[in-house]
Amino acid sequence: MCGIVGVVAKSFVNQTIFDALTVLQHRGQDAAGMVTCEGDRFFLRKDNGLVNEVFRTRHMKKLNGNMGIGHVRYPTAGSNSSAEAQPFYVNSPYGIALAHNGNLTNADKLADEIFRSDLRHINTTSDSEVLLNIFAHELQQIGKLQPTADDIFNAVEKVHARCQGGYAVVAMITGYGIVAFRDPCGIRPLVYGQRVTDKGEEYMVASESVALDTSGYTLVRDLAPGEAIFIDTQGQVSTRQCAQVSRVAPCLFEFVYLARPDSIIDGVSVHHSRMEMGVKLAEKVMRERPDHDIDVVIPIPDTSRTAALEMANTLGVKFREGFIKNRYIGRTFIMPGQTLRKKSVRQKLNPIMAEFRDKVVMLVDDSIVRGTTSKQIVQMARDAGARKVYFASAAPEVRFPNVYGIDMPSASELIAHGRTADEVGEYIGCDWMLYQDLDDLKKSVTCFNPEITEFDTCVFDGRYVTGTVDEDYLARVDAKRNDGAMSASDPSVEDSNESADLHSKID
Amino acid sequence: MCGIVGVVAKSFVNQTIFDALTVLQHRGQDAAGMVTCEGDRFFLRKDNGLVNEVFRTRHMKKLNGNMGIGHVRYPTAGSNSSAEAQPFYVNSPYGIALAHNGNLTNADKLADEIFRSDLRHINTTSDSEVLLNIFAHELQQIGKLQPTADDIFNAVEKVHARCQGGYAVVAMITGYGIVAFRDPCGIRPLVYGQRVTDKGEEYMVASESVALDTSGYTLVRDLAPGEAIFIDTQGQVSTRQCAQVSRVAPCLFEFVYLARPDSIIDGVSVHHSRMEMGVKLAEKVMRERPDHDIDVVIPIPDTSRTAALEMANTLGVKFREGFIKNRYIGRTFIMPGQTLRKKSVRQKLNPIMAEFRDKVVMLVDDSIVRGTTSKQIVQMARDAGARKVYFASAAPEVRFPNVYGIDMPSASELIAHGRTADEVGEYIGCDWMLYQDLDDLKKSVTCFNPEITEFDTCVFDGRYVTGTVDEDYLARVDAKRNDGAMSASDPSVEDSNESADLHSKID
Amino acid sequence: MCGIVGVVAKSFVNQTIFDALTVLQHRGQDAAGMVTCEGDRFFLRKDNGLVNEVFRTRHMKKLNGNMGIGHVRYPTAGSNSSAEAQPFYVNSPYGIALAHNGNLTNADKLADEIFRSDLRHINTTSDSEVLLNIFAHELQQIGKLQPTADDIFNAVEKVHARCQGGYAVVAMITGYGIVAFRDPCGIRPLVYGQRVTDKGEEYMVASESVALDTSGYTLVRDLAPGEAIFIDTQGQVSTRQCAQVSRVAPCLFEFVYLARPDSIIDGVSVHHSRMEMGVKLAEKVMRERPDHDIDVVIPIPDTSRTAALEMANTLGVKFREGFIKNRYIGRTFIMPGQTLRKKSVRQKLNPIMAEFRDKVVMLVDDSIVRGTTSKQIVQMARDAGARKVYFASAAPEVRFPNVYGIDMPSASELIAHGRTADEVGEYIGCDWMLYQDLDDLKKSVTCFNPEITEFDTCVFDGRYVTGTVDEDYLARVDAKRNDGAMSASDPSVEDSNESADLHSKID
Amino acid sequence: MCGIVGVVAKSFVNQTIFDALTVLQHRGQDAAGMVTCEGDRFFLRKDNGLVNEVFRTRHMKKLNGNMGIGHVRYPTAGSNSSAEAQPFYVNSPYGIALAHNGNLTNADKLADEIFRSDLRHINTTSDSEVLLNIFAHELQQIGKLQPTADDIFNAVEKVHARCQGGYAVVAMITGYGIVAFRDPCGIRPLVYGQRVTDKGEEYMVASESVALDTSGYTLVRDLAPGEAIFIDTQGQVSTRQCAQVSRVAPCLFEFVYLARPDSIIDGVSVHHSRMEMGVKLAEKVMRERPDHDIDVVIPIPDTSRTAALEMANTLGVKFREGFIKNRYIGRTFIMPGQTLRKKSVRQKLNPIMAEFRDKVVMLVDDSIVRGTTSKQIVQMARDAGARKVYFASAAPEVRFPNVYGIDMPSASELIAHGRTADEVGEYIGCDWMLYQDLDDLKKSVTCFNPEITEFDTCVFDGRYVTGTVDEDYLARVDAKRNDGAMSASDPSVEDSNESADLHSKID
Repeated sequence: MCGIVGVVAKSFVNQTIFDALTVLQHRGQDAAGMVTCEGDRFFLRKDNGLVNEVFRTRHMKKLNGNMGIGHVRYPTAGSNSSAEAQPFYVNSPYGIALAHNGNLTNADKLADEIFRSDLRHINTTSDSEVLLNIFAHELQQIGKLQPTADDIFNAVEKVHARCQGGYAVVAMITGYGIVAFRDPCGIRPLVYGQRVTDKGEEYMVASESVALDTSGYTLVRDLAPGEAIFIDTQGQVSTRQCAQVSRVAPCLFEFVYLARPDSIIDGVSVHHSRMEMGVKLAEKVMRERPDHDIDVVIPIPDTSRTAALEMANTLGVKFREGFIKNRYIGRTFIMPGQTLRKKSVRQKLNPIMAEFRDKVVMLVDDSIVRGTTSKQIVQMARDAGARKVYFASAAPEVRFPNVYGIDMPSASELIAHGRTADEVGEYIGCDWMLYQDLDDLKKSVTCFNPEITEFDTCVFDGRYVTGTVDEDYLARVDAKRNDGAMSASDPSVEDSNESADLHSKID
Repeated sequence: MCGIVGVVAKSFVNQTIFDALTVLQHRGQDAAGMVTCEGDRFFLRKDNGLVNEVFRTRHMKKLNGNMGIGHVRYPTAGSNSSAEAQPFYVNSPYGIALAHNGNLTNADKLADEIFRSDLRHINTTSDSEVLLNIFAHELQQIGKLQPTADDIFNAVEKVHARCQGGYAVVAMITGYGIVAFRDPCGIRPLVYGQRVTDKGEEYMVASESVALDTSGYTLVRDLAPGEAIFIDTQGQVSTRQCAQVSRVAPCLFEFVYLARPDSIIDGVSVHHSRMEMGVKLAEKVMRERPDHDIDVVIPIPDTSRTAALEMANTLGVKFREGFIKNRYIGRTFIMPGQTLRKKSVRQKLNPIMAEFRDKVVMLVDDSIVRGTTSKQIVQMARDAGARKVYFASAAPEVRFPNVYGIDMPSASELIAHGRTADEVGEYIGCDWMLYQDLDDLKKSVTCFNPEITEFDTCVFDGRYVTGTVDEDYLARVDAKRNDGAMSASDPSVEDSNESADLHSKID
Repeated sequence: MCGIVGVVAKSFVNQTIFDALTVLQHRGQDAAGMVTCEGDRFFLRKDNGLVNEVFRTRHMKKLNGNMGIGHVRYPTAGSNSSAEAQPFYVNSPYGIALAHNGNLTNADKLADEIFRSDLRHINTTSDSEVLLNIFAHELQQIGKLQPTADDIFNAVEKVHARCQGGYAVVAMITGYGIVAFRDPCGIRPLVYGQRVTDKGEEYMVASESVALDTSGYTLVRDLAPGEAIFIDTQGQVSTRQCAQVSRVAPCLFEFVYLARPDSIIDGVSVHHSRMEMGVKLAEKVMRERPDHDIDVVIPIPDTSRTAALEMANTLGVKFREGFIKNRYIGRTFIMPGQTLRKKSVRQKLNPIMAEFRDKVVMLVDDSIVRGTTSKQIVQMARDAGARKVYFASAAPEVRFPNVYGIDMPSASELIAHGRTADEVGEYIGCDWMLYQDLDDLKKSVTCFNPEITEFDTCVFDGRYVTGTVDEDYLARVDAKRNDGAMSASDPSVEDSNESADLHSKID
Repeated sequence: MCGIVGVVAKSFVNQTIFDALTVLQHRGQDAAGMVTCEGDRFFLRKDNGLVNEVFRTRHMKKLNGNMGIGHVRYPTAGSNSSAEAQPFYVNSPYGIALAHNGNLTNADKLADEIFRSDLRHINTTSDSEVLLNIFAHELQQIGKLQPTADDIFNAVEKVHARCQGGYAVVAMITGYGIVAFRDPCGIRPLVYGQRVTDKGEEYMVASESVALDTSGYTLVRDLAPGEAIFIDTQGQVSTRQCAQVSRVAPCLFEFVYLARPDSIIDGVSVHHSRMEMGVKLAEKVMRERPDHDIDVVIPIPDTSRTAALEMANTLGVKFREGFIKNRYIGRTFIMPGQTLRKKSVRQKLNPIMAEFRDKVVMLVDDSIVRGTTSKQIVQMARDAGARKVYFASAAPEVRFPNVYGIDMPSASELIAHGRTADEVGEYIGCDWMLYQDLDDLKKSVTCFNPEITEFDTCVFDGRYVTGTVDEDYLARVDAKRNDGAMSASDPSVEDSNESADLHSKID
């Protein structure tokens, strides 16, 4: 998961990009980066850390120019996009910087091709660097001193033809403008908006509409799957469908968990889709246990609160805040001669005892991945005195890896992989395990926009919409992921990857 | 506002204190500090910043010892406790470190006395340094090489006799143990808890019971107003009432806003008291406007959520999450040649439009201080399409300064100072301004513990329970506060204060 | 002025490069950088600061690989090579990193050409980036997947044909090896050496032979003007003359001041040439004032010590250390409300009074540039009680700017520009101003290696050996230099330049 | 070894103290600290590092006030003064800050006494903290609200009576002034000087006269052994002999090695004494080997240069700079999986081959401690082709530990401990080992000031002038030193000591 933004404005864009990245921070807390362009100069700052850690006044002072792009990164383990902060840069042709959200499933093959055909060196394992060099290569083939919007769209067409996977991309070409595009299935979201100032019209593209809100941009629309937009330095906007075949198949997990509730994706309010998920869960309760004995519905904060509230309302039972989330994150220090204490969910959540005592509680979470946290939470509810503990997941069983840019454990670590709902319930120790039906989940979104007929639902049903993901690839991802897991305990290896990027930061 | 903690355990306490301070972080985000004691050595680390910024692995490695105290600081402008990180230290007698939460109203006079009587130099404007030196002086008067618990309690008695104000204190005496005490009115909270390990019993004193929860300590009880507890290095516990006159008059604002909902203060669950505040607000609505037209109750996150939910339940109207709080805090950079953009509440809150459109919304906040934020929120609700905007405050009108350790603007900046509820409503632009009655607010707490008959309610009614706060003092506080406000725009002045502390940090 | 190094070894080279850069630190204290290569991965670290500030353990741990290049930078104001740390990197073709010492006098024209012919974006004002892109372009024209040494030398030939100025270059090609070359006049020095380990032969190229000494490499020889050396990853060495016309015309200022005394440049020991300069100065004294009254010869530490000692020996007068150099550099803080104290040479030198009192002293310095320091030193000698103060410069009058990579003030700031020796003497306040004759200076070098028949002596006589430096260019350099001088007082401008480099550092 | 300074001026003293500490940096590179006083406020900054690392603009801005003291620290292993940065501070009485150079030989006993008599907690192993508390205790006994100069001198008298060892001390009393004193034998140096400004007279006390020079202060005189000086905030100066018995017995090692050559200690120019040491060495050569075959005298830079030059002059043989000292210090990184390379003297010195080839060289150093460096240097001279290598030491055999504040290895590590000169020569591999005679060394100083009749020469002859150093103490020092040596390889232990100081820094 990552968040991207691009702005072409009439005055310096550094603060606007900073604000947008802050609002998109939930899409990636590992690293942040920004490139701005003034005349024929690029200014880059990127590093590991949160947005407000990476960008200090001394960096902001140097990030000059009226256009720029930005990125926040969440590590996408098990894929090619692993360890490096974005945007990436190549100086030939023109000087191009690029950032993307998603994952290419044929990145290894492309990296090899691009070296053989163009002698282009790929210095990291990031598929963003591959994507950038493919795009750069296609632009260079056109070879114009002054590329037009159509030249650029032609290059994007070639990118679509060569790249497989899910991706939302923003790229800046020195002195010319910003281009953004979305994969032909529209798996990853991308919107654009406009702001009118007295100096003229300004444009922003971003992963989510909340990034527009924060700086007073008005949502124009989502980019269509396969579509590209080019905004030149003068603020002239062109769009073109650049994919031969395209269809609307957005990632369903964005609605369940990833996106901010106040975002609107492909025309649907995430908040409303989550409310509907709560309604659907309640309906399933009443279908399955019309005479249920639930005393209280308690959300596991924060994402599931919306669904839990509507579930309670629909069921007509009490809704209560039974867990207090620690806003400040602690840390366990490893001291010489001490053994590491087991990391407990208690550092994140604290129960309000009285809400559980002697009650039948229905806990609601957005989804269950590994199940370890859920297990601890169920235990916490029992320790607090709950008579029975039920557990509802607003999403169906998560059983398969994601290959379109969401960091998920490998299949073998997914608690629902090869397990029924009851078996998951047994593992986490609850008295009733209630999963949303996949069909109900889809309806929670489509009821607000019937034009969406398809989704990327791979994590639930193992169906990969791009059709190019085979067993081999999944096995490779799994292997890499396990390597990654190992290296996580070996900081030098991890550091090594981080340092592979040769494109510099201001600091 | 500050948070304090003290631990006497059977193994190193640095991680436990770190965890406790993290959980108490809501009581102070400005600075953090910790002193531990091993044998006859003290180890100190304190600095401005959040707990996880101040304590790094390199500091934790040096914070050795089985007992220690910690502190998080929120600036208490307009009082003597201003700018320095705690704990403070004096080397005579014994080596004593001290941290406190609260404010002494006669600190200036005491500082003068202590220099004249004992030539003790006070190097900061912090009343904690004064408190420490008073306590140190009284202990030195006793002058034993090996002080007993009673010697220490006798010194606390003298402290109570000389110090006026609200204070909860924890102090560590090199090689002997930890003493903690609460002012004779019990204005500021202080609890202690116990944990049994296979090495023996361990004890923690803390501002709030949540600090006990996080490390598996069990709440024993609140310290009584005027009471002191001494835990020696062996884990022997003694308590004694050290005030001549004492009465239970806890600060009501802790329940309204300051404390964590999952804390229990003077026997009352903060969460439950807030639920009751919501019930009481609903009852007032029904008293005043039995035929109200409220469509939906919307909390202003996060504190007011509990009250708002019960208010909605009691009224039988819908409760909805209409505002999304930005979890990541942005920042506005001041660039050369650019003018500072007005800081907007939009950086903190984003409305979900559909929850407001064409509705009569009842917004609920815990309290209203300056009114500027409330005004912007009301406008945001209107911009989102609300038909009418009502505004409820779970606390009564805040009209007077606090002198017991809570950082409040001076009276003239309080929107309700000299204004009626309607006038406040007019200022913030709402269609109905609903304040909780003070009596209802008190009942929201006393209904859970009838033994509390009195509160510190000074911010609402200007009555100061210690009886020693006169017009002169308030005028002086106001003047200082205004000076402080000015110096806030002059970083060098502020820095200067920060550097006044001579007691060092590890770094 | 800069220092460069390149190493192809049988084990990790980071420590060796670090050591070499430390020993070359006198050639540049502004910035340092290193790129290493392991397999097809580059690892880069560069930043402003001294070598031991830029490279910390955390960086060294990531600088993996058996080959690498390094750079230390001294700002070359008034030229195109200004503000960025090296090495630079391009990813096409192959991935090439490059560092250089010197200056291109036609960098602007080349930057323009390279964009038009190859769409290559130059993002800084550094001529190193231009040089790199020219070299990269020429290599790409050859276009082989596996370039041979001859392919690379052919590209170097093209570089010589296009680039004008003085330059010593080291470049690394991912996966293939390191190439180094020296401009056709051999203005800037470059040597290579060999070390035999039990794993095989290892090679180093470096600006000065002292870099070889420090890691146990044996000097093989200087690269000839125009010559290139290629060392592949296996340690195979090839050399070839790549310039159509070449001649030996090394920079004379290297011998006077820039190089370490223990270096051997173009076959001549710098130390011995400096001793000879002292002899020649003494001979001039005896020519001009056979009955001189000099009591004592006193060097201005550290560079002139060698010449001063031999001057004293030849004259048969006493040699004394009359000035103590402060080893630790102070700093003047600008405090609000205080005026900046005039920076005094007293912060650098302290006289030993007794060595001056009532004596006729001959002070010896290596050269005089602006004359301001010399003036203060003369005054210091008088204040210490000297009866007469004579001043000898081991170099002739410095009257013209340098365009081959040495940072010199513009002509108008040079004290000897348009002044006779006597006039300079008058300005600095000495009783006798004695300059070395240019011919004597040349002889001080050629007497040790008669094969050197020519020098770059432009700073003394305004003759530019490359023959391509015209009045226009000098005027432009002067203008830029003056702009630079202004921007030096405006940190934001300077910072801006620094941040223009997009090639990243590990950090 | 440490350097101390104190200034009472008419404007802010931070820059003056910074400059003085920079000039005294050779006396201690481990840590630096400064306390200034403005009104009744102290401002402290201290940390490990060089002066220009410890004091940044942000610290200097806070170090307000017209009086202050400063300190640079060299670790004094094997004694009580080990790991902490100075000055130290106590708040009772008055607020006193103190810094000192030297070592107390009865610190442990005093620390115990001061706790028992006054309950004063000593939190570090620094004898400076002990000294401060003794002084504070004695002042408190006097107990005046406004102490006079005589009160302060009376306290100093008590300090002399209780403390044993060598010490030069500067202390600042909040709001009153600065007091400085020197131990009754005058082992460690201390001078004071005066500067007249248009605002009035300003005073500085400092370890060496060079600190006065740098800020334009004129040397008034050395403090006499046992004498104290008090400068009040108004600039009134008082001095008084505070020791019952005193005698002039300065440390001889200051002249040999520790002090800057341009300093004047007890009336003697260090530079001149070193010249005389060279003369005396030459005379010994001519006594012992009238027909010596020395071709050239080569100093081991930098300290021995003065003596070597005069030795060569007196002998009438050539003096040559045969070693170039690396001005920039390298570092050896310990990489995982690599073994640490042996630290070589080659990182510090590089020989100029031609000065050694086929010659009989006399190397000159100031002294020989462990002998390991000397051994490598002799080998380097042989490798460079020397026919014979002689080695002269300007100081006699160093055979015994120092207990007056100089960091020396324990006796067993001293190469001359239990060895004759010839045996040392054999160990370091030279053909002739020539040590200065102790008597000659003394004469090199006394010839310039006959009033000095006695020296602290303990490292040469094991005679301790304070008469209170017995076998037990020396054994304890040796044991501690060996512990220290071990802990040096264990950074966590070392860090632990560093953190023991509770007196805070601005940062």
